[in-house]
Amino acid sequence: MVGGGNDAFIGGVHRIASRIDGRFDLVAGALSSTPEKSAASAEALGISRSYGSFEEMAKAEAAREDGIEAVSIVTPNHVHAAAAKAFLAQGIHVICDKPLTSTMEDAAALEKLVADSDALFVLTHNYTGYPMIRQAREMIASGELGTIRIVQAEYPQDWLTSPMESEGLKQAEWRTDPARSGAGGSIGDIGTHAHNLACFVSGLEVESLAADLQAFVAGRTLDDNAHMMLRFAGGARGMLWSSQVAPGNENALKLRIYGEKGGLEWSQEDPNYLWFTPHGEAKRLLTRNGSGASAVSQVVSRIPSGHPEGYLEGFATIYSEAADAIRAVQAGADRATAMGQLPGIKAGMDGMRFINACVASSKANAAWTNL
Amino acid sequence: MVGGGNDAFIGGVHRIASRIDGRFDLVAGALSSTPEKSAASAEALGISRSYGSFEEMAKAEAAREDGIEAVSIVTPNHVHAAAAKAFLAQGIHVICDKPLTSTMEDAAALEKLVADSDALFVLTHNYTGYPMIRQAREMIASGELGTIRIVQAEYPQDWLTSPMESEGLKQAEWRTDPARSGAGGSIGDIGTHAHNLACFVSGLEVESLAADLQAFVAGRTLDDNAHMMLRFAGGARGMLWSSQVAPGNENALKLRIYGEKGGLEWSQEDPNYLWFTPHGEAKRLLTRNGSGASAVSQVVSRIPSGHPEGYLEGFATIYSEAADAIRAVQAGADRATAMGQLPGIKAGMDGMRFINACVASSKANAAWTNL
Amino acid sequence: MVGGGNDAFIGGVHRIASRIDGRFDLVAGALSSTPEKSAASAEALGISRSYGSFEEMAKAEAAREDGIEAVSIVTPNHVHAAAAKAFLAQGIHVICDKPLTSTMEDAAALEKLVADSDALFVLTHNYTGYPMIRQAREMIASGELGTIRIVQAEYPQDWLTSPMESEGLKQAEWRTDPARSGAGGSIGDIGTHAHNLACFVSGLEVESLAADLQAFVAGRTLDDNAHMMLRFAGGARGMLWSSQVAPGNENALKLRIYGEKGGLEWSQEDPNYLWFTPHGEAKRLLTRNGSGASAVSQVVSRIPSGHPEGYLEGFATIYSEAADAIRAVQAGADRATAMGQLPGIKAGMDGMRFINACVASSKANAAWTNL
Amino acid sequence: MVGGGNDAFIGGVHRIASRIDGRFDLVAGALSSTPEKSAASAEALGISRSYGSFEEMAKAEAAREDGIEAVSIVTPNHVHAAAAKAFLAQGIHVICDKPLTSTMEDAAALEKLVADSDALFVLTHNYTGYPMIRQAREMIASGELGTIRIVQAEYPQDWLTSPMESEGLKQAEWRTDPARSGAGGSIGDIGTHAHNLACFVSGLEVESLAADLQAFVAGRTLDDNAHMMLRFAGGARGMLWSSQVAPGNENALKLRIYGEKGGLEWSQEDPNYLWFTPHGEAKRLLTRNGSGASAVSQVVSRIPSGHPEGYLEGFATIYSEAADAIRAVQAGADRATAMGQLPGIKAGMDGMRFINACVASSKANAAWTNL
Repeated sequence: MVGGGNDAFIGGVHRIASRIDGRFDLVAGALSSTPEKSAASAEALGISRSYGSFEEMAKAEAAREDGIEAVSIVTPNHVHAAAAKAFLAQGIHVICDKPLTSTMEDAAALEKLVADSDALFVLTHNYTGYPMIRQAREMIASGELGTIRIVQAEYPQDWLTSPMESEGLKQAEWRTDPARSGAGGSIGDIGTHAHNLACFVSGLEVESLAADLQAFVAGRTLDDNAHMMLRFAGGARGMLWSSQVAPGNENALKLRIYGEKGGLEWSQEDPNYLWFTPHGEAKRLLTRNGSGASAVSQVVSRIPSGHPEGYLEGFATIYSEAADAIRAVQAGADRATAMGQLPGIKAGMDGMRFINACVASSKANAAWTNL
Repeated sequence: MVGGGNDAFIGGVHRIASRIDGRFDLVAGALSSTPEKSAASAEALGISRSYGSFEEMAKAEAAREDGIEAVSIVTPNHVHAAAAKAFLAQGIHVICDKPLTSTMEDAAALEKLVADSDALFVLTHNYTGYPMIRQAREMIASGELGTIRIVQAEYPQDWLTSPMESEGLKQAEWRTDPARSGAGGSIGDIGTHAHNLACFVSGLEVESLAADLQAFVAGRTLDDNAHMMLRFAGGARGMLWSSQVAPGNENALKLRIYGEKGGLEWSQEDPNYLWFTPHGEAKRLLTRNGSGASAVSQVVSRIPSGHPEGYLEGFATIYSEAADAIRAVQAGADRATAMGQLPGIKAGMDGMRFINACVASSKANAAWTNL
Repeated sequence: MVGGGNDAFIGGVHRIASRIDGRFDLVAGALSSTPEKSAASAEALGISRSYGSFEEMAKAEAAREDGIEAVSIVTPNHVHAAAAKAFLAQGIHVICDKPLTSTMEDAAALEKLVADSDALFVLTHNYTGYPMIRQAREMIASGELGTIRIVQAEYPQDWLTSPMESEGLKQAEWRTDPARSGAGGSIGDIGTHAHNLACFVSGLEVESLAADLQAFVAGRTLDDNAHMMLRFAGGARGMLWSSQVAPGNENALKLRIYGEKGGLEWSQEDPNYLWFTPHGEAKRLLTRNGSGASAVSQVVSRIPSGHPEGYLEGFATIYSEAADAIRAVQAGADRATAMGQLPGIKAGMDGMRFINACVASSKANAAWTNL
Repeated sequence: MVGGGNDAFIGGVHRIASRIDGRFDLVAGALSSTPEKSAASAEALGISRSYGSFEEMAKAEAAREDGIEAVSIVTPNHVHAAAAKAFLAQGIHVICDKPLTSTMEDAAALEKLVADSDALFVLTHNYTGYPMIRQAREMIASGELGTIRIVQAEYPQDWLTSPMESEGLKQAEWRTDPARSGAGGSIGDIGTHAHNLACFVSGLEVESLAADLQAFVAGRTLDDNAHMMLRFAGGARGMLWSSQVAPGNENALKLRIYGEKGGLEWSQEDPNYLWFTPHGEAKRLLTRNGSGASAVSQVVSRIPSGHPEGYLEGFATIYSEAADAIRAVQAGADRATAMGQLPGIKAGMDGMRFINACVASSKANAAWTNL
C-alpha cells in the first residue's frame, strides 16, 4: 500500500475492503510522506515491510521472491501517477484510488504506461461494486427499461459547508487544494463518482455537458458545488449535481434512470434497495438477495436479504474481482478479458475528461463542451 | 365557474377546494364549450344558473342583485385571458388556474387589465397553500438557513411516457397541443409550479436560466421533459427538472433549499413533513401542527398532527385566503394589502416569463437567458 | 349537529367532512352544553337554527317542513346515547362519533332503539373511508393473501405523555375522565379504531383477547397504554397496541396483515400508500388512484395519484356514503342494503364489547376473555 | 472453527466478521460432521489444519505451541454445549453462536463449566454490535428518555411461510427440528435476538411474560410465530413479536422504546439510523458517525457517516471486542472486566430462560410466567 498512513480515511477503507473476502494479505507499505511516519504507521498496523518511498518499495518488492503481487495506491490525487508508474514499471499490478490523477498530462502519460504494461490497472470506483448497482446495469442492458431517455445523477454532501480547510481538517485541506486535488473540487472528489455510476449503470457515454461551477465558501478556489446538464450519445439527456455544501446530506449519491418502458431509482445511503417501476405498473422494491434479485447481484452478495451489506462490502467486491483478474492473467488470460467490467484506465480517463469538460464549460459560461 | 364540465379533472378540484372551509357557494357556471354541454354539466352538479358562454355569464351575473362575487376560471390555458377579461370588466373578482395564459401577448394584455381593474385577480398556485411550505418560506425569510446558496426543484410525472394524446385521453390532448397550452409542455403544466414554489419559498427571483427541452415521445411538439440550470438574483444557483415521461413518478414535486446555516427538504407527495437540518446538527422532521410547527403553518392547518391534510386542503387555503382578500377590499383595504402573499398577476407574469425563457434558451442551445 | 362548539376538535372535522362532497348543508345545531354557548358557537359558524338542548332540537326539527334529515352527534361519549335516542325517536337519521357510548348499558339500550327505528344509524369509524383501506379489505376478501394468519394492529400517540389533563387541556380532561369517556382510556379513544380497522380489513372477528392495561401517568385512572394479544375466529392470531404515552407518535395507526400467500402493510399517517408483498415476489407500492389501484379504491378517490388525499377526505367518504344510504332508504331500500359496508350499530357494539373485554381481561391478570 | 462447512450460512458470516478488523486468523477447523466433509470444506477455504471432530481438534490444538487462542462454534444449537465444553476444558477461549444450547440441562451444565474455566465465553448476539444500538443503550442509561415505560420489540421474517423444510432447504430442516434447535422455533432463532436487544438497550430485565405460540404451517412442530406481552422489572411493559411467516419481512428486527421524556426507534434493516424524539420536540434522525452520534457509537464505527456500515461490521465488532477481551485476560485482567458489555454466558442463560418461559406460558394458555 502506498499512502494510507495514520489519519487518512481512505487507507483504512482499502485495508478492510481487501481483507473482507480473504483474498489479499497486506505485507508491505510506503504509508506516509516520510520514512519515519511511514514506519510508525506500518508498525501501528502490523505491516512488516515498511519503505521510505514508493520508488524504493517498488524496486525492493520486485526483487523479492515473495514480493507483492499488487499494490494499492491511496495517496492524494497528485501522487497517483508517479506511484502507479513505479509499480507498473516493475510489472506489479496496481489498484488505484480515484480520480486517476490531478492533471490531464499525468493522466495521458499514465494511460500510455498502462497500455504498454503487462500488469493490470484497477481504479476503485467502488460504488460499481454494490449488488443492486450490478442488477440495475443488467436490467438496462437487457432492455427492461427500453430506450433510456433520462439520467438524473446527484452526489450532495455537507461537510464543506463551513471553511473546514481553514480549521485544520487534513481531509479538507488537500481536497480543496488544486495542487494536490487537481482542477476539480466537488466534481473531482464526488462528481466523478456520479458520472462514473451514471455511465456504468445506463451503459451510455456522456457526449457533452454544460456546467455551472461554484465555490460558495469564501476563499475556496476549487468548486464546492456543481450543476450541469448532460447529453448522452444516442439521445438521452441528464442532469448531474455534486455539492459539498448542502446541509443535511452525508454521502447522498443517488441515481435515477428512466426509459420508455420503466424507471429505476437507487440511493447509496440505502444501497440494498432498488426501486423499479415497469411503466403502468406498481413500483417494486427489489432487495439485495431478496425476491426479485437477479443472479448478477446475488453473485456479489455475501449474506441473506434483510441483513444489510454496506459500503465496505461493495468496496470489497472491487478488490475480490481484482484478485480474480490477477489470477486470470497469471493463468494466461488477456488483460481485457480478465478485467471484465472492473473499472480501469478507461474509467479513469473518462473521469479526467469529465473534470476537464466541467471546468472548461463553466469558464465558457456553461457552453456545451464535449468530453 | 368557467370551464370544469364533466371529464375535466381540475374543475372538480376547484369545486371541492372552494367548499372545504365553507367560504364559497357555487351558484352559476359556463362549464363547457357549448350551451348544451354546459347545461348538462350544471344540472349534474346541481348548479342552478347555467350559461352558454362566459361573456353571457359575466354580463348576466353583473346585472343581478345576487350576482356572483367571484368567478373561478378553470378552462384550458388559451381561454384564461378572454374569460378573465370578461369578468374583470364587470368588476367581478377572478380566481384563475395557472399558467396565466397560453401566449405572452395575452398575458401582457391581462396584466394591464388587472392593473386597471378594481377587482382582485388570484392565480391558483395551490402548492403555496401547503402549511409546511408556508413554514419553509418563513424559516428562510427569518434567516434560519442563512444566505441561500442552492435551490433544487423538480417536478417529475410519468403519465405521458406513452403517447396518450393519440389514445383518446382528453387531458393529454390539450396539454400537448400548443394551440391550447401555449409554448410550454411540461414546463408550462408543471415546471411553472416548481419555479413558482422555488421562488415563493426561497424568497429569491430567478434572474436567468439555461434550459434543454426535449419531446421524447415521437410526434409530440411540446416538451415532455425539461432540464435547466438557474441563477438567482443575489448569487444563489439552482436546477429545475420537469418531466412527464419519468416512470414511477406521479406528482413528485420536490424542493430542496440549502443555505450557509442549514437545509430544508419537502416533497409534495408527503406534504405534512418538512425536513430541516441546522448545519452540524441532526436532521429534524417537522410535522404539520406537530412539535416544531410554527404559527404560520398552524394558521393554515385544520386538524391535529398525524392526521394528514392533503392536496385539497392546500388548495382550499388559496380559496379561503381569496375570500379573506375579497372581504378585505370590500371593507376598503387596498388590493395589494388584501392580497398579502396570495399568488396573483405577478406570479402569473413570472410564470409566463419563465416559460418564454425556457423555450428561448433551449432554441439557443441552452444559452443563459434572462427572465 | 349536537356538540362541536368552539374548542371542540372533532366537531370541525365533521363539518368539513360533511361539506367536501357537497352532500350536506349544516343548518341547525345544539352545539354546547348551555343555550348561551350554543348560540355563540352557532353564530360564529353561521348556523341559523341554534337550540339550547338536543331534546329541543330533535322535536323542533322534526316538526319543521324543512327540518333536518340527519344529525351529527359529536359530543363526549357519555352523551351519545341520549342524543341518539332523541333523534331516532323522531325518525331523524343519526351520524354518531365513536365509541358508541360510555357504558355497556347505554349501548345495549341504543342497540335496541336502532333495531326498532326506521332511521339509519351511522358510526363514524372514519378510517374505513380511506381508499387504500377499501382496497386492502377487497384484496383479502378476494383471497389475494390466502388464509389470514397474523394481524398486527397498533395506534400509538404521544399527546398524553405528560399529565395534560392537569394543565387545562379540555381534550385531555374529558378523555381521561371515566364519567365522560367510559371504562376505556386509550382503548376507547384509539384502540377501538385499531380493533375496528383490523376486523374491517381482515374480514375476521376477534373471538377473545388477553390484555394488559396501564395508566403510566400518575393520578390517571383510565389506561393510557394497552397491550393485548388477539385470537380471531378461524384461527388467525394478532396483537394490538394502543398508547397515548409513546413520544414521537402522533396518530401512528398502523395495520399489517399476513396470510399464506402474501402480506399487506398500511399506515394512517401516509394513507395513500399500501404495501403489498405476494409471497416470494418483490414488495409493491400500491398508490391511491395509481397503477395497481383497484376499482373499489378509485370509486372513493377524488383526485389523481400523487396528489395526496388525507384524513378529511376519508372522513368525507363516510358522510357521502351516509348520504347515499339516506337517499336509498328514502327510495325504499331496506336499511341493511342501504348501509352496505358503512359502520353502524354492529360496529359500535363490537367496539363496546372490545373495551369491556380489555378491561375485564386486564383485571383478571390478562386472562383470555371473550368479546 | 467448529461447524461452518460448505452450505452453512452462518459460518461464512463468522469468518468475514473475524477478518474485518484483522484481529483473527482462521487456521484450524472441524467444519463438518464427518472427517471427509470437514477436510473438503477446509481445503476449499484454505484452512491448513482440518480435524475430524471437535474433540480431536481441542486436544490437538491445545497441545501445539502455535495452537489456536480461541474457537468459533457455529454448529446447529444442539452441538454448542459439547463443543464448548471440549475447548473450555483445554483453556481455549470460546466464541459461540446463539442460542446457547438446545436444552436447559445443557445450558446449566455449560454455565457451570464457564464459571469454573479460566477461558472466556462470548456469545455472538451480534446485533449488540451495531453502533446506533450502542448509542441507544447509552442514551437510556444516561437518562435521556427518563424512566422507561414501554418496550416494543419485533423480529418478523417470511422465509418459512411455505413448508421449506419439506423442500430440501437445509437451513429450514434443522431450524424446524426440535432435536437440533431445541424447544423454540422462531422464539429461539430470532425471538432471542429481539429479547436480548430489548434488554441490552433498555437496561431492563424481563420479569415475566405471557406468550401465545403458533405453528401455522401444517406439520411443523416448533413455533413459526410468537406473540407475547412482557413485564419488566421496575414496571415497564412491552410486547414482542417473532415470526417466520410474515410475507414482506426479511430480517425486520425493530426496537422502539418510550420513556417519560422521549422515544427511540431503530430498525435492523436500516441500522445506521436512530430516531430520537425528545418529548415535545421534533423527531431527530441520528446517523452513525453523523451529527448527533455519540462517542460510544463512533468508537465502533469504521467509516464516515453516509457510507453505510451493515450487518457484517456489527458482527465484526463483537469479534474485535472478543479479541480485546482475550488480550486483556492475557494481560491479567479479571474476566468480568475483560468482557465489559460483551454478551456472554449470562446473555446465553437469559435467552434459554426466555425460550423456556415462552414455551411454558404458551402451554398454560398464555399465563404470566417468570423467566
